Amino acid sequence: MKKLILLTAFPLLTLCVPAAAPAQKLFADAERLRDAALKDELAWDLVEGLTTEVGPRLAGTEAEARARDWSVRRLKALGFSNVRVETFDMPVWVRGEERAEIVAPFPQKLVVTALGNSGATPPQGLQADVIGFDSMADFEAASDAAVRGKIVFVSHSMVPTQDGSGYGYYGRARREGPSLASRKGAAAIVIRSIGTDYHRNPHTGVQSWAEGATPIPAGALSLPDAEQLQRILKRGKPVRMRLTLTPRMIGTRQSGNVIAEVPGRDAKAGIVLVGGHLDSWDLGTGAIDDGAGVAITAAAAKRVMQAGRPLRTIRLVWFGAEEVGLIGGRDYLAKHGQEKHAVIAESDFGADKIWRFDSKVSQAAQPVVDRIARALFPLGIVKGSTTQASGSDIGPLSASGVPTIELQQDGTRYFDLHHTPDDTLDKIDPEQLRQNVAAWTAMLSIAANAEVEFGPVPAAAAR
Amino acid sequence: MKKLILLTAFPLLTLCVPAAAPAQKLFADAERLRDAALKDELAWDLVEGLTTEVGPRLAGTEAEARARDWSVRRLKALGFSNVRVETFDMPVWVRGEERAEIVAPFPQKLVVTALGNSGATPPQGLQADVIGFDSMADFEAASDAAVRGKIVFVSHSMVPTQDGSGYGYYGRARREGPSLASRKGAAAIVIRSIGTDYHRNPHTGVQSWAEGATPIPAGALSLPDAEQLQRILKRGKPVRMRLTLTPRMIGTRQSGNVIAEVPGRDAKAGIVLVGGHLDSWDLGTGAIDDGAGVAITAAAAKRVMQAGRPLRTIRLVWFGAEEVGLIGGRDYLAKHGQEKHAVIAESDFGADKIWRFDSKVSQAAQPVVDRIARALFPLGIVKGSTTQASGSDIGPLSASGVPTIELQQDGTRYFDLHHTPDDTLDKIDPEQLRQNVAAWTAMLSIAANAEVEFGPVPAAAAR
Repeated sequence: MKKLILLTAFPLLTLCVPAAAPAQKLFADAERLRDAALKDELAWDLVEGLTTEVGPRLAGTEAEARARDWSVRRLKALGFSNVRVETFDMPVWVRGEERAEIVAPFPQKLVVTALGNSGATPPQGLQADVIGFDSMADFEAASDAAVRGKIVFVSHSMVPTQDGSGYGYYGRARREGPSLASRKGAAAIVIRSIGTDYHRNPHTGVQSWAEGATPIPAGALSLPDAEQLQRILKRGKPVRMRLTLTPRMIGTRQSGNVIAEVPGRDAKAGIVLVGGHLDSWDLGTGAIDDGAGVAITAAAAKRVMQAGRPLRTIRLVWFGAEEVGLIGGRDYLAKHGQEKHAVIAESDFGADKIWRFDSKVSQAAQPVVDRIARALFPLGIVKGSTTQASGSDIGPLSASGVPTIELQQDGTRYFDLHHTPDDTLDKIDPEQLRQNVAAWTAMLSIAANAEVEFGPVPAAAAR
Repeated sequence: MKKLILLTAFPLLTLCVPAAAPAQKLFADAERLRDAALKDELAWDLVEGLTTEVGPRLAGTEAEARARDWSVRRLKALGFSNVRVETFDMPVWVRGEERAEIVAPFPQKLVVTALGNSGATPPQGLQADVIGFDSMADFEAASDAAVRGKIVFVSHSMVPTQDGSGYGYYGRARREGPSLASRKGAAAIVIRSIGTDYHRNPHTGVQSWAEGATPIPAGALSLPDAEQLQRILKRGKPVRMRLTLTPRMIGTRQSGNVIAEVPGRDAKAGIVLVGGHLDSWDLGTGAIDDGAGVAITAAAAKRVMQAGRPLRTIRLVWFGAEEVGLIGGRDYLAKHGQEKHAVIAESDFGADKIWRFDSKVSQAAQPVVDRIARALFPLGIVKGSTTQASGSDIGPLSASGVPTIELQQDGTRYFDLHHTPDDTLDKIDPEQLRQNVAAWTAMLSIAANAEVEFGPVPAAAAR
């Protein structure tokens, strides 16, 4: 129903925006801002500051609260308007002790980390035989009797890809494995980390207990440890593991979205929403996920602001509690879903070079899409889909029919770092970060000033 | 004195070995064995087995004892002669809890590991202000008063090199930093890991307390953590750290060298000693340090054995307790230093491609050196020094004047992994491992059958 309402809210008659400047000038402005942004220092300064002065910032913890305070201070100092925090409550899960060891036949320690919402072992750990599966399909095919009382190990064969598209498929081991293990009566589950690197830094990540699945201990082994366990299992002797994971739910705490704006000339032209998420997993300092995203979008918004008041209001949103279940995105939708969003875009895939530009906007706005594509082309960015674009926190808003743009970063090494202790500042290449800022600046300059409406999204593309 | 005795023990009159085959045949045999070794599976099988079925094997622990048992079983099954363990006693230090966190001004955890022989903090840790130095030179220049009661942080600027030559220089922070910190009255010391990778896996390694230095807690931060601490220190506010390291000395335990032989035709021709070290640090599974070395040298020795009884006895030594102070090497020297070693060589620098061949042998043996160089050239290996060659465990024996050969592996990524949890099987490239086996096989085939003596080493080269 909401989709229909939105589609009819932007009749074709209002497609042209009277206050807009000529297209040629808008393009020249975007080019100029883009080239200046190739020397950007602000995005680095922001992500360096956030990761150093706050560090890890797990949703709902006092570290995330410190990150919000830090953000408000920085965004006000940068001259943004209406800088504020919109708070919401959420249940908070925190990590405890994490240890795994093979007790027999070849005693040795393995490196493990708990998955989000994992249940806990007793403080001294639990000991059980291990049953291994090469894939979720193999695990699904196993009988409950084979699994009952055991520690389940589930592997997979995710490889790096430029667009990161393996994450959805292979990520099932994390998202669905624990609930399935619980339902089959397993004592615990450890999965091969949903990642592509061979460092002994396991990848955490959220999972939610499905209906009928009571929480059990659920962890991820680093890839070297997962393959070690597979080699040990292949020897054919019973494998005994001791697993200690002592995370706990600490109750309801406050999180929040940090919002800042660049007021536009025409309130009726709608809002251009850009942003990323402020929270991070607790293992690293959240540099690529998503310190980079909040820094890139803020630096771009600041550059467009400095170029003169845009036609549309730019709203910068640094979402809270993304990692643990898109809670900030949902809170934003509840509070702002009925406002007119001209177009929305999110940066949450690291800071490597943007290589493709996707969009999901009206037919009438295709000339603007082409203009953005032309402005991005000198940065090595090609035009991609015109029917699919989304984002993590903005996903629900995008799915409700709001015009959406997506600047796709090269994800080849993203899942080497994603959700690991290795997500630290040194992983950001300042040169590629600047390319990101330049692309976002050009896109945002054009989007905030475009002479046509970006909606309505054709029904076929609105998903 | 010992050097003089050794030099006079190999008079020039015995330079030619009567039982040797013609040089041309020896070269053709070496070429044939080399090419066959490019299909080697044994070295992989050995290092896979050792790292999987034993895993980490810290010197003097029951894990190292299991490694010796495993080795004796495997070496006997491979058909080597005189397979035995020569035991020795040693003091044993074991790791405890390891935690570091910035308490102020930006609370967050850092990743730390204890250096060998580190003292311990109280179980609940110690808290002190941090004073940072960019180099050992800066730290040396600091007054005792500036350091007293503080946690010292020492950085350095080691970069990767092909020959690994930065390790000696930059390694001072690990070898000398803790004793200096103790003497200056510091509460503890943490150094930037002696390594070149940006993963949150700190590099451990041995250090010994100098005269007058009482043990204090001494740890290493991973490079991302060391740089994070530097960024925090640069903010100019007092930095407070809580450090928890609870290692302990557990008393005297047994270690040992594992020895296996390929008996030669002529006992008077001396022994060709090849090997690596069996012990590893406890954090990884000791794949590149030095599972690879023991596997490569064993695979080469097995190939030469299978080609027919060599002129000289090949003695394969898998040294114990190398990491903690070359204790196995010294025990071997004490027990076997007076035997006639024709030539000695050790593999202890990973498993990446061998790129250079160094030697330290008699003038009369230079034609044999050239023959080895010719046999190695098709593997992409160039002839290097003819006056400098050594090894870790064989260092004392080499320094005493014994002819020595060194096959230099590419060390560009060695210090990314060295002494970290990341030293695991997946870091070995099977193709490069085979190149190593081929090079060692060719060298060993020629060395074990050469028609001239390798000694005496010229006095200038004997160091």
